[in-house]
Amino acid sequence: MAKHVYFFGGGKAEGRGDQKDLLGGKGAGLAEMSRAGLPVPAGFTITVDSCDEYYKNGKKISPALRKEVEAHLKRLEKLTGKRLGDPQDPLLVSVRSGAANSMPGMMETILNLGLNDESVEGLAAKTNNPRFAYDGYRRFIQMYSTTAMGLSKEPMEEMLHALKHKLGVKTDPEIPAPELKKLCADFKEFYKRNQGSPFPQNPIEQMWGAIEAVWRSWTADKAVTYRKVEKLTGLKGTGVNVMQMVFGNKGDTSGTGVCFTRDPNTGVDEFYGDYLSNAQGEDVVAGIRTPVKLTEMEKVNKPAYVQLCEIRKRLEKHYKDMQDLEFTVEEGKLYMLQTRRGKRTPAATFRIAVELVKEKLITKEEAVSRITPEDIERLFYPQIDPSLKKEQLAAAKIAEGINAVPGAAGGKVIFEAGRAEAAAKAGDPVLLVRKETSPEDVGGMAVAKGILTATGGKTSHAAVVARGWGKCCIVGCEELNIDYGKRQMSVDGKVVKEGDFLTLDGNTGSVYTGRLPLKDPTLPKEYHELMSWADQIRTIKVRTNADTPADSKKAIEMGAEGIGLCRTEHMFFETEARRLAIQEMIVANDEGQRRKALEKLLPFQRDDFAGIFKAMDGKPVTIRLIDPPLHEFTPKDDEGVNRLSKATGMDEATIRHRVEQLHEANPMLGHRGCRLCITYPEILEMQVRAIIEAACACQKQKVKALPEIMIPLTMDRKELAILVERVHAVAAQAQASSGEKVKYMVGTMIEIPRAALTADRIAEVAEFFSFGTNDLTQMTMGLSRDDAGRFLPDYVDEKKAAVFKVDPFQALDVEGVGQLVEMGIERGRSTRPGLKVGICGEHGGEQNSVKFCVRAGMDYVSCSPYRVPIARLAAAQAAIEDGKKGGGVRTGKATARKSATARSGRSATRRAAPATRKKKPAKKAKKIGKKKR
Amino acid sequence: MAKHVYFFGGGKAEGRGDQKDLLGGKGAGLAEMSRAGLPVPAGFTITVDSCDEYYKNGKKISPALRKEVEAHLKRLEKLTGKRLGDPQDPLLVSVRSGAANSMPGMMETILNLGLNDESVEGLAAKTNNPRFAYDGYRRFIQMYSTTAMGLSKEPMEEMLHALKHKLGVKTDPEIPAPELKKLCADFKEFYKRNQGSPFPQNPIEQMWGAIEAVWRSWTADKAVTYRKVEKLTGLKGTGVNVMQMVFGNKGDTSGTGVCFTRDPNTGVDEFYGDYLSNAQGEDVVAGIRTPVKLTEMEKVNKPAYVQLCEIRKRLEKHYKDMQDLEFTVEEGKLYMLQTRRGKRTPAATFRIAVELVKEKLITKEEAVSRITPEDIERLFYPQIDPSLKKEQLAAAKIAEGINAVPGAAGGKVIFEAGRAEAAAKAGDPVLLVRKETSPEDVGGMAVAKGILTATGGKTSHAAVVARGWGKCCIVGCEELNIDYGKRQMSVDGKVVKEGDFLTLDGNTGSVYTGRLPLKDPTLPKEYHELMSWADQIRTIKVRTNADTPADSKKAIEMGAEGIGLCRTEHMFFETEARRLAIQEMIVANDEGQRRKALEKLLPFQRDDFAGIFKAMDGKPVTIRLIDPPLHEFTPKDDEGVNRLSKATGMDEATIRHRVEQLHEANPMLGHRGCRLCITYPEILEMQVRAIIEAACACQKQKVKALPEIMIPLTMDRKELAILVERVHAVAAQAQASSGEKVKYMVGTMIEIPRAALTADRIAEVAEFFSFGTNDLTQMTMGLSRDDAGRFLPDYVDEKKAAVFKVDPFQALDVEGVGQLVEMGIERGRSTRPGLKVGICGEHGGEQNSVKFCVRAGMDYVSCSPYRVPIARLAAAQAAIEDGKKGGGVRTGKATARKSATARSGRSATRRAAPATRKKKPAKKAKKIGKKKR
Repeated sequence: MAKHVYFFGGGKAEGRGDQKDLLGGKGAGLAEMSRAGLPVPAGFTITVDSCDEYYKNGKKISPALRKEVEAHLKRLEKLTGKRLGDPQDPLLVSVRSGAANSMPGMMETILNLGLNDESVEGLAAKTNNPRFAYDGYRRFIQMYSTTAMGLSKEPMEEMLHALKHKLGVKTDPEIPAPELKKLCADFKEFYKRNQGSPFPQNPIEQMWGAIEAVWRSWTADKAVTYRKVEKLTGLKGTGVNVMQMVFGNKGDTSGTGVCFTRDPNTGVDEFYGDYLSNAQGEDVVAGIRTPVKLTEMEKVNKPAYVQLCEIRKRLEKHYKDMQDLEFTVEEGKLYMLQTRRGKRTPAATFRIAVELVKEKLITKEEAVSRITPEDIERLFYPQIDPSLKKEQLAAAKIAEGINAVPGAAGGKVIFEAGRAEAAAKAGDPVLLVRKETSPEDVGGMAVAKGILTATGGKTSHAAVVARGWGKCCIVGCEELNIDYGKRQMSVDGKVVKEGDFLTLDGNTGSVYTGRLPLKDPTLPKEYHELMSWADQIRTIKVRTNADTPADSKKAIEMGAEGIGLCRTEHMFFETEARRLAIQEMIVANDEGQRRKALEKLLPFQRDDFAGIFKAMDGKPVTIRLIDPPLHEFTPKDDEGVNRLSKATGMDEATIRHRVEQLHEANPMLGHRGCRLCITYPEILEMQVRAIIEAACACQKQKVKALPEIMIPLTMDRKELAILVERVHAVAAQAQASSGEKVKYMVGTMIEIPRAALTADRIAEVAEFFSFGTNDLTQMTMGLSRDDAGRFLPDYVDEKKAAVFKVDPFQALDVEGVGQLVEMGIERGRSTRPGLKVGICGEHGGEQNSVKFCVRAGMDYVSCSPYRVPIARLAAAQAAIEDGKKGGGVRTGKATARKSATARSGRSATRRAAPATRKKKPAKKAKKIGKKKR
Repeated sequence: MAKHVYFFGGGKAEGRGDQKDLLGGKGAGLAEMSRAGLPVPAGFTITVDSCDEYYKNGKKISPALRKEVEAHLKRLEKLTGKRLGDPQDPLLVSVRSGAANSMPGMMETILNLGLNDESVEGLAAKTNNPRFAYDGYRRFIQMYSTTAMGLSKEPMEEMLHALKHKLGVKTDPEIPAPELKKLCADFKEFYKRNQGSPFPQNPIEQMWGAIEAVWRSWTADKAVTYRKVEKLTGLKGTGVNVMQMVFGNKGDTSGTGVCFTRDPNTGVDEFYGDYLSNAQGEDVVAGIRTPVKLTEMEKVNKPAYVQLCEIRKRLEKHYKDMQDLEFTVEEGKLYMLQTRRGKRTPAATFRIAVELVKEKLITKEEAVSRITPEDIERLFYPQIDPSLKKEQLAAAKIAEGINAVPGAAGGKVIFEAGRAEAAAKAGDPVLLVRKETSPEDVGGMAVAKGILTATGGKTSHAAVVARGWGKCCIVGCEELNIDYGKRQMSVDGKVVKEGDFLTLDGNTGSVYTGRLPLKDPTLPKEYHELMSWADQIRTIKVRTNADTPADSKKAIEMGAEGIGLCRTEHMFFETEARRLAIQEMIVANDEGQRRKALEKLLPFQRDDFAGIFKAMDGKPVTIRLIDPPLHEFTPKDDEGVNRLSKATGMDEATIRHRVEQLHEANPMLGHRGCRLCITYPEILEMQVRAIIEAACACQKQKVKALPEIMIPLTMDRKELAILVERVHAVAAQAQASSGEKVKYMVGTMIEIPRAALTADRIAEVAEFFSFGTNDLTQMTMGLSRDDAGRFLPDYVDEKKAAVFKVDPFQALDVEGVGQLVEMGIERGRSTRPGLKVGICGEHGGEQNSVKFCVRAGMDYVSCSPYRVPIARLAAAQAAIEDGKKGGGVRTGKATARKSATARSGRSATRRAAPATRKKKPAKKAKKIGKKKR
């Protein structure tokens, strides 16, 4: 049997910091700190695999594991010289979860384990502090009852509250020991009543109960939801850390803290965190008491603070990243309880990464690799319009809290997570407002635009979770007087009801009534610096999907190197005149009438194209000819029919009849795309004329235009050949009459499976391919994106069918659709070696899909303007990853063409087919690359 | 330059009978008969390629061709000792078309060419028969003017008619020579007036005009339509035959005839045909005069008749098939003008094929290869219910004509081809009734259930075309008095208006008023004999698609060896009780209500399955679980909602809301197939329980049941794995409670491209694959079958885009969809070598698709009961074809697996991709079989 338990303590550890997958993040951190000689309480980590085996074993503990754990407990007892449950001087331990990825607050922890009716007396005697001992015992009974045994939290909280009320005290430490002892008895009585058996006095039984509680918390709803929201997949379970207790609640020389080695909001290289005197760690994390700034610790506990500052430097150097630390000071002595990569705001992410490069702790490639798409997305979160006058702001302001996560957000106030989810589903912008948040609230937090809590500090649950998501968050806004029952709150006499609109400024902590205008933020200079490194590293181009000159300009700002998809049909909706002209074209009775209507559209399209060419000066612009089925343009109501009738002189009945005629059973697979141009060549003629005339006009004005005319929905070589020929004929005519000669290309989308399958023949007549992976996904998987909402969630849900890890419309289905993409490229280039290939589906802005595109040998990806930086980043990361594997950053593209699907993980998830188990020389393998599975 | 002209005559020929593609059918036949020493007038054939070149050359004659043709004309003049246009004794020639495939009446012919104002006098003097000479000249002017120059036919016919009226004569031969001479002058005047130049007197100019006319007739609408209807593709053009004229109109010792070497209606080995004394061939073919039976010829022209009978035997032996002959007797001397494979009825096809085998002229394999799917289809055409009493028939009978093509048909009388097409499109059964038909009518003939003409014999245009199609046809029904203007006809005083219903009996020639009941025919014994040969030859099984015990029984009669597709959902519609139960299941609010409704359906389904198992005793039955989206079952109108409300107690608004909820944008790609069973496992559970319980019940009654449970619309291995596991769980339960143990399999449809692409993984959990090529075609090509009617016709139309040769929903798209089928099979068998594979789309009953399936290595095809014989035939033909190529009839399957697409013609139609141009050892080629393009 593999080793399941790893010991640490006494300056040594069996595990290592790089064993996160085995020990979980916390266990690995504890091992690493122990090895580094930092003051870490001794203990042992039960591996992640043991959790997996527990579930596989029908939630039973195997005898072998039981033996191994209990042997390590003996070892811990020997090292500490104390014994669990010892009536004189008991060893107390904490039992904590710790998965490979941090899931703050999601998983269970049980403290002070080892106390029972006997040992609590021993502890009281030994510490000469009965209040401390009984406070620990009552905390343990509470945690064990609720966490391990699943009893409801409220009754015991209520009993504690009632006791304080009776005694007339405000805080826990004011409760005298005898009262606490009585409370413990009441708690045990409560336990027995509800559980049907007395509270366990055997510490070994307690320990196993706690370990199982940690394991069970892995599959609790909130944890599953969190992993779904965070897209954490492939985890096998959580590690369990059993560790000697140290106490921050032993008076004023004790305390506990949570801190970051740099400011997680700005990234500034300053020590940052919270400290709470005379408290256990849970008090800080839960945000129940408001802690002081870490720097204040220097005043109350200088030696420990100085030691902590040294440790801060050592850990950063060791981990080469900003760390999130937990520590406890027990009667002046510092203990490190945790180190892990610290969550941070996007701005801080960029600043820290760039500064670590300048400090020569990491390379540029490492810096680029550390940025996530979410970091970039969140950088662009809005802020309150800086042009607003101070008086305006002052008038709207109703409260101020702690600015936990920057950014700004406006929305309707909702006081409960479930209702927040419902409101968001209905399309409302939501602000979740709570006294404090707890892991049960993550669903509501995920959908909220911003989060506001009345209590808690910057390391409270709300702050930590929101920061991870880059979501505007204000905590500790103590002025708020929230009444959950009435669904309202009062602030300084003003009443805010559920549904009222507020605006939060996460940068300042200010809360405003009403809807303040928001604006895009100024990007930190480190963003531009890091992205320039990414641009140097990446091997493929990044274009954008843009339909207007304004979008085009925005995209260039975002770093786009051309337009990969300009949808011409959106232009038809822009004005009433255009809408009527396209509608007239559609309802036309014959080609003559259709051409007349198209003539009206021509100048609009020509102007639009000219505007786009100007905006993209010199950069290629891929223009897709009309794509959607015509019925998408037809009037939808009586008024529309009436207007069209007036504009065209056609009677309403005829128009209605024509609209009905256009109805399709499956429009996705219907009369659309280039099929329209096969039936109505005059549409193609108008569009091509507009494109070429615009290009000629630009050229006359010394504006370089590089149109790439793209034919959508091609399924066959001959179909495309007919249309390409028409394009050239019209283009020749348009050039002849303008007297200009312009460069242009004609290519096709590959979005029908058959097009990918016959790409070798299609490439004979196409100068470029652009993979339309939205449609390709729909057809390859037989999934209508409009309808999949009905069942696809079940297919992605971890607890239901879990067929797919992620929605294939969000991230390209490499295993299936990816095969067709690779096939299309390989076959296309087999007949046209220089074939230019790109992607213009929404996958072109999704990290893993972009990496796949790089590996499949594409020349560019194209995505919406705001996704352009993500695509730039992902393309660089793919180059870095392949460079690492293949040798040399810049060789990624060449080596990658062989089997992008294999690298994108398909080989890992599927069994090799027998045919490829035999070894083949590399050259042959390349040729049959698409079969490598 | 390649040889373009092939000479024949004097017992020799440059061409051969097997050069149909080069010389056309007529040219090859003339060459072969010349070589065989039969009496054939001398002449030469201009190759089919020359026609192609004429079009490629912009409808211009190349100087080289001009030279070559004129050199052969000189050779003809030398051989015959006569000169074209000679004023004393002119050579006259006919110019006739002849493509590789016979297109009766579609293409042009010009006779008597070489006559002009001078040579006509020479002919008159030489033959001492001015009437004959001038009759020939007027025929030539007429034909040349209309055929070569495109003048309208009617004016000259009218002039001829007026002349006869003036002279008070009825037939052409009664017109005296001087009147004919005057008529010629009038014709020439008419020509000059309309054409702007005098009628050409230069015979060489005449000849080229006639040759060009033949070439132009190749692309005339009627010819294009005919090729489309007959699915004649890949032809390059028509040959042109220039041949010395012989005259059947030189008095009573002359005559002309058309005949078949066996009876084309029954296949009986009897000489069969028509003879017309003192006439030119065109008179017989056009059906203008009614000829006598061929056997009557013995009386008027015995020596020629005896010689013809000898030639009949020789040609049949030579060609090993029944021949269609044309001949002319000129003053007692027999000339053969044509021999070609004779068209015949389906019954005759089988009888002739079987008898030729017994005569040892052909092998069984040859006999099987000669049968077409249409031959089989038409065998099953109905006849008038034989149980009708004689009196009933006599009362309904209104006329009797010549029984040209057997079978029976009822429909609405339509007098014009265009209107017949419109009526057929509107869904009406149509009978096309004409005085005579001409090539312009083929569109209307194609859509008609039956054809009835007032004139013409069994070899008239109507009879020949209808026979080719196996379409009921009565000709020469002289009692009909048709008035096209009034759109009605009178028969023996009764008036039949357009739209009235008639019934035709093509077996007897009887015409009945009203709608007589029709019945399936008795199959000829030769059908069963030949099909038994096909069954011995074929290498794969043929199953059927059947949903009821009745269908199952029918299918077994048709030769089915199991059920390949039993659609369970059709059962839900059968009775009101079932409909309500399925609707209740769909509108159910929760699983409980859904299960309750499903409980009601269970006994229905169980009974149905038991019935089918009994009908198929011992043969495998593939049962597909529910497939269509649920909204297909919901009530469609207020009444339906009301009934459902009453049956379920749910209020109507709730039902309506649920129905609306089920609406989908693209139901084809929506919530259907196995996706329903992922969402609602209870549906699967009910269906599997019904299947297994039925199988157990059958087994108890000693009826062997072999259910194969088929899961539709699978797209992923895990999805299928979840469902397969459920099937087994339910099956185990059902068996346990019945105490029986039944054999069953669980497999899947492969109908989503992704399923084919990931077939290796899917095969890990599927015991069999069945390709649903209807859906696979829809998704692979992005074509909704429901909507494609809007544009797909353009894609198949030879004159429009002509992207596809045939509708991909009729014949499998081998180039695209075929790749996925091959990939699916290859990959599926890579993980499960014994994987059973079949097809159950409608392609399973289409000849070329079945051949593809054989070559792709399928174990069976499945199709509707009436297509079963076609599938049996096609499977045998594929084995024969591959046996011929690969050596040995029975080795077809093994060798075919490598590249069915290549054999099915893809390699012929597409360029080889560069990667495969290099030679590879056979073994490797097999491994990358799917890349062989």
